[in-house]
Amino acid sequence: MKLIRDPIHGYIEIPDRLLPVVSNPIFQRLRHIKQTALAYMVYPGMNHTRFEHCLGVMHLSIDFLKFIKSNSKLDLDDEFIELIATTAMLHDVGHLPFSHTFENALLVAKEIYGANVFEKGKRTHVEYGIKVITEGISAELERIFKNVDDPIGFITRVLSETPSNRVEKLATLIISNFIDADRSDYLLRDSYYAGVGYGKFDIERLKRLLYFDNEKLAVLDKALPIVEQFLLARMYMFQNVYFHSVVGLYNAILSQAIAHLIVNDVISMPENLDKFLTFDDNLIFSKIHHVRSELRDAILYRKGFKRVKIEPSNECIDILESMKGEIYEDVRSSGGLFVFHEFNDVPYRERRDEAVHILTSRGVETLGSKSSLVGSLSEIKKIVVGYHTSVQSLGEKYEKIISGCVKGR
Amino acid sequence: MKLIRDPIHGYIEIPDRLLPVVSNPIFQRLRHIKQTALAYMVYPGMNHTRFEHCLGVMHLSIDFLKFIKSNSKLDLDDEFIELIATTAMLHDVGHLPFSHTFENALLVAKEIYGANVFEKGKRTHVEYGIKVITEGISAELERIFKNVDDPIGFITRVLSETPSNRVEKLATLIISNFIDADRSDYLLRDSYYAGVGYGKFDIERLKRLLYFDNEKLAVLDKALPIVEQFLLARMYMFQNVYFHSVVGLYNAILSQAIAHLIVNDVISMPENLDKFLTFDDNLIFSKIHHVRSELRDAILYRKGFKRVKIEPSNECIDILESMKGEIYEDVRSSGGLFVFHEFNDVPYRERRDEAVHILTSRGVETLGSKSSLVGSLSEIKKIVVGYHTSVQSLGEKYEKIISGCVKGR
Amino acid sequence: MKLIRDPIHGYIEIPDRLLPVVSNPIFQRLRHIKQTALAYMVYPGMNHTRFEHCLGVMHLSIDFLKFIKSNSKLDLDDEFIELIATTAMLHDVGHLPFSHTFENALLVAKEIYGANVFEKGKRTHVEYGIKVITEGISAELERIFKNVDDPIGFITRVLSETPSNRVEKLATLIISNFIDADRSDYLLRDSYYAGVGYGKFDIERLKRLLYFDNEKLAVLDKALPIVEQFLLARMYMFQNVYFHSVVGLYNAILSQAIAHLIVNDVISMPENLDKFLTFDDNLIFSKIHHVRSELRDAILYRKGFKRVKIEPSNECIDILESMKGEIYEDVRSSGGLFVFHEFNDVPYRERRDEAVHILTSRGVETLGSKSSLVGSLSEIKKIVVGYHTSVQSLGEKYEKIISGCVKGR
Amino acid sequence: MKLIRDPIHGYIEIPDRLLPVVSNPIFQRLRHIKQTALAYMVYPGMNHTRFEHCLGVMHLSIDFLKFIKSNSKLDLDDEFIELIATTAMLHDVGHLPFSHTFENALLVAKEIYGANVFEKGKRTHVEYGIKVITEGISAELERIFKNVDDPIGFITRVLSETPSNRVEKLATLIISNFIDADRSDYLLRDSYYAGVGYGKFDIERLKRLLYFDNEKLAVLDKALPIVEQFLLARMYMFQNVYFHSVVGLYNAILSQAIAHLIVNDVISMPENLDKFLTFDDNLIFSKIHHVRSELRDAILYRKGFKRVKIEPSNECIDILESMKGEIYEDVRSSGGLFVFHEFNDVPYRERRDEAVHILTSRGVETLGSKSSLVGSLSEIKKIVVGYHTSVQSLGEKYEKIISGCVKGR
Repeated sequence: MKLIRDPIHGYIEIPDRLLPVVSNPIFQRLRHIKQTALAYMVYPGMNHTRFEHCLGVMHLSIDFLKFIKSNSKLDLDDEFIELIATTAMLHDVGHLPFSHTFENALLVAKEIYGANVFEKGKRTHVEYGIKVITEGISAELERIFKNVDDPIGFITRVLSETPSNRVEKLATLIISNFIDADRSDYLLRDSYYAGVGYGKFDIERLKRLLYFDNEKLAVLDKALPIVEQFLLARMYMFQNVYFHSVVGLYNAILSQAIAHLIVNDVISMPENLDKFLTFDDNLIFSKIHHVRSELRDAILYRKGFKRVKIEPSNECIDILESMKGEIYEDVRSSGGLFVFHEFNDVPYRERRDEAVHILTSRGVETLGSKSSLVGSLSEIKKIVVGYHTSVQSLGEKYEKIISGCVKGR
Repeated sequence: MKLIRDPIHGYIEIPDRLLPVVSNPIFQRLRHIKQTALAYMVYPGMNHTRFEHCLGVMHLSIDFLKFIKSNSKLDLDDEFIELIATTAMLHDVGHLPFSHTFENALLVAKEIYGANVFEKGKRTHVEYGIKVITEGISAELERIFKNVDDPIGFITRVLSETPSNRVEKLATLIISNFIDADRSDYLLRDSYYAGVGYGKFDIERLKRLLYFDNEKLAVLDKALPIVEQFLLARMYMFQNVYFHSVVGLYNAILSQAIAHLIVNDVISMPENLDKFLTFDDNLIFSKIHHVRSELRDAILYRKGFKRVKIEPSNECIDILESMKGEIYEDVRSSGGLFVFHEFNDVPYRERRDEAVHILTSRGVETLGSKSSLVGSLSEIKKIVVGYHTSVQSLGEKYEKIISGCVKGR
Repeated sequence: MKLIRDPIHGYIEIPDRLLPVVSNPIFQRLRHIKQTALAYMVYPGMNHTRFEHCLGVMHLSIDFLKFIKSNSKLDLDDEFIELIATTAMLHDVGHLPFSHTFENALLVAKEIYGANVFEKGKRTHVEYGIKVITEGISAELERIFKNVDDPIGFITRVLSETPSNRVEKLATLIISNFIDADRSDYLLRDSYYAGVGYGKFDIERLKRLLYFDNEKLAVLDKALPIVEQFLLARMYMFQNVYFHSVVGLYNAILSQAIAHLIVNDVISMPENLDKFLTFDDNLIFSKIHHVRSELRDAILYRKGFKRVKIEPSNECIDILESMKGEIYEDVRSSGGLFVFHEFNDVPYRERRDEAVHILTSRGVETLGSKSSLVGSLSEIKKIVVGYHTSVQSLGEKYEKIISGCVKGR
Repeated sequence: MKLIRDPIHGYIEIPDRLLPVVSNPIFQRLRHIKQTALAYMVYPGMNHTRFEHCLGVMHLSIDFLKFIKSNSKLDLDDEFIELIATTAMLHDVGHLPFSHTFENALLVAKEIYGANVFEKGKRTHVEYGIKVITEGISAELERIFKNVDDPIGFITRVLSETPSNRVEKLATLIISNFIDADRSDYLLRDSYYAGVGYGKFDIERLKRLLYFDNEKLAVLDKALPIVEQFLLARMYMFQNVYFHSVVGLYNAILSQAIAHLIVNDVISMPENLDKFLTFDDNLIFSKIHHVRSELRDAILYRKGFKRVKIEPSNECIDILESMKGEIYEDVRSSGGLFVFHEFNDVPYRERRDEAVHILTSRGVETLGSKSSLVGSLSEIKKIVVGYHTSVQSLGEKYEKIISGCVKGR
């Protein structure tokens, strides 16, 4: 066992079995992928990386499993716990430079600049991840988890959210769920580095009240306030940090820059492991002088761009979405000096078996039936429009459109 | 200026003008009134007192005024700021032993045991406060605030929420409001001593975004998430700490004990300042051997009582309220070995000019019109039923009633 | 297992075996003994009690043992671990009202007022503790620890620091040592409630590096900086909090008040368990009107006393100690309106097997041989002289003496 | 005024006059210079940059001056305060990639590989800083500080520690001193990101007790424990974080890599502002494939290197220093696969007017005369020896030498 100092969880204990996984270059590479892309433009402390986040998710997954095993009298041996922990730790290894911003850049390249790129929206990193794990570490994992039949299959099915048995189902729920080890870690971690209180919730109590019952991950009903607090914490982090207008502006600019690099063949999508290993934030910075100076200076020195400061109302957002063709054309014709960024997130929703489950004296119920507060949570939609001062007229055009339609909040 | 170390605000600076107020026995007495009565039975760290809370409220009121003055370009001199701070600091000096629990005990004494006592519900401490300030410190205050016409009148009108001019209105809003210095301090403070995270909110940002506009205290619209966070923080503190079932049980028992002390003339309501000065938590403890041993042992050693563990649903609460005569009779006939405690709180509500106000580009609007989330907050109602093990049958009677009617959460 | 929320350690888990010990009145009584007497006069947050401290020591002792057991491959079963934890939890049950201040009051009663009282210096509470455990909970403990031969003997030998075998030696070192569970808890806890940073140290790392080797408790050499930090943290807490001049002044006044209550037979030392159970802080407050009003008003309202503000140098302290007869006479003749308080503490010292031990590649060595810093720590000595304003002349007399001899710091 | 969220100080307020300085590319560039080079190899949270550190130093310098001005009744107007704050903010703009590691790399390039480089030890960044300020922002500063005669001269003299008048002396002491705004910020900040407690000290109290007296920066004697705590906090951060053996190993490897880049003319020292603006961490990462793969893989993936694990004693260090010629030859002949890193720091020392000053009733005295503890602080010296597994025999050679001479700690 090895101990790593972590500001969020104190010490993270790495079980011996996981040491070679941590040392593998596909995992070490995450030291060079920032967790929250250019959020540091607004919150200067947010330089943290996917590396520490993934260690944190691994740590929490073991913690969660420890309590679930004891609360639900599960028969789950250490090897399976550590296989789930490995899966948790590797869930982000497929992220491209600047994480979700690269995924957005692929969309920009495809939809605005007509590039022919591999693009799977927010699942792009999952697909890459499975590929990278298979190529880079499968032999090692088979050696480590020698009592498990097909560990790579296990990891693949869990990460692609297609579990084929009960343990895989549990693993999937712990890693990808409304309340899971991934979200728990990033809320606590991102709010720590941002220096804001929004993302805090009572993790100590939450983890002690987790159950796995009837193939559902559930929390005991007395944890209901913590569940609400968790969903709200996440919503506030989105509203205030991830979807901050200025953060949006700079990620839009960075998306343009990356799209240009792709379109102009300065960079190309990694086709083998070796290339993937150097496909990180540093690569983009090293190529940044290949993009036009206005974009470069904005990214490096926060220079030259402005943003339309009026917040589009929901009606406005609909109108803007209906004129997407024109907007894309303006982005294209300005060579990326006019930028446009859409945010959206669903804080909570129930459909089919997608729900937070609550364990009451009457069995497992859904959160929606127990909490009026979560019913009030609606989709967060936001549009950020920005422009370089040299294309002021484009900025004014959209400022006029938005002022015209602003009504509600 | 004097500095006092405070775990919540770091250092509290006491302006020179307020030093004699802090030193006055009517304020020092608050060292002997616990902030949260017997909450320490469940949260062992909650031994903190009204003394430090009132210093905290004073501190925050100055902070709030500093930002409001600058944001709203108010003309408010130091003497008025410090008069408001004095009012804030003195807002709880009228509290009786164990604060709100004594107010509840007066109700028990009157309604269950038919005692003829001075009882004004949750305003009892306000009435006592004004009396104590007038008798104990008015000459001093007139000397200190020599440029203010009638400082006692000012304080009286503000504490009784009947302001007669703009500054008094501002003072009232800063001290008694949905979001105010009092609540801000107690949420942060109580959660610190409880060791829970529920009560935290972003006070640093909130105070910087306060405005006083058109006789309304408002927050800038970009603070909307903090306002929601504040109201939820308060709601969670009520649900989890103040209205914790076991906290309720022991405060019900303490209410019985105090009511017995009153009914049996062991203690009587303080009629003059000297008597009031020793009317504190210690007095109750010193008389505790005059109440029956079952109550005493419960209060001193957490011994002997149980609680009906099923949580009454809202329908249940209505049924229990409709049978209050019978319940009171059971309490009375058991000599307080059967206890009953009602909790209720309104997290947020708008009526007449009672609302949180939001300053937007369109002027001052109410929170309700801007936040769907606060619309989902409903009144918290809760009933706790407990009994000494020697009157088990009474416990079983109510357990049966409650099991019978439990339906919703 | 029961969970208790604790601001210092998050959650404290109480093993089932210990539940009846926690519920026993001899332990619940500690809710009414403040941890740091009148320190709240200066640090208003310091109202915490021995109850939560003892839970904390119990918690840490289990934590320490868990790591020691694993690091040193000890054969130690759960029943013994929980017996040590019980001993740790009960280590303070013998404390009299206001803890060490009462012990000081006994000394005052004996030496200044010639009373004939049971007085064992700082061991008084240990002797009472063993008595109370024997009378109050021995049958229960024998029932709980049924596989242990003579659990009361075990506890007695450990608390009186006369271990008779290896496990008792380990228990003694964990509870009473330069670095132990007791000190670890009170440093973290007292600094939390004071709101100061002095008492913090890296407990998470420290506990992971503990060993029990050759009947010595040792820390791994890479924890050397934490050990230094710990000893310094404790020294700073003494200098700034426990031995704060104003804290000293009020504890001197309280010692006078308690001594007067004893000398005048208002209170007498508890001779049986029942009397001991009510012998707590509340008892002193309930009798406070029996002492002269100047002392009472100082204790209740921080009123009337001053302190000689010049800090006596070490030479000065020697001179004052040499004139103790005269000082005592002045205290006596003033009826306690002139007070005098001596503080002293040894931050670290090595003699016989009393030392902090460090585990290096060469075996177990003493801290003194590894750290030049601890060599620089010297005994803390301090004298506080105070007086009621009505005996100003006595104050001036000593102010003159101290000004005369002040030289170094 | 603009507000920036900072995890250390809450909100950092940027005065209007400083906004253009913050926006200037020479300052924005610091977003791309890590504060603690490769410390993130061991403490994964340490990805923070000079950008936020410099904002913090600016913030603290204003805070310090506010209290000094009021405590010492200084006549210091806002323009001078903000000029000092600007100087504080710009004190690190001359840092090269990876800060001190680049300075070390220059030494390696010169002493081991015989390169002819501009190298001024730990003052290299100061010289670059003055150059960059003069070239990049002098016109702007003259415009901003229009009532100051020669602001660039002021800044230059303060940063090069050659003040020519009283205000410059004060500025110098606030920025470069045993206890200053720079060290205060980095101790708090680095320990926050490392997740360790070592670097904490009571900044709130410290800053309130600062005086400027007789051209000396002094703290009031009652802050003596905080001063000790500060010096120890810094010492512990050096021992545990900055001089951590593994951190040392990777910085040694990075120094090799950078030296190779210089020696092989892959990078050259920036000769003009434009080149300097892109001379940041990213530049090094973008050139990393030009260095041999063993060094690259170590830096990117923590792969391939080991370290001699025995800690050289002081005698050992002397011996190793005496054989430096041979060591350099081994480094050279192995092509940087054998590395060697020396650490040293003086925690505290008094000479000429270099000292921490304490303000007592007898005037200004030096810390050394008041604290025996600081007398026990001695220079920290440490040597780290590492090697790539392909040159195992070199590792074994030094392991043997060090085992041979290890005696003390």
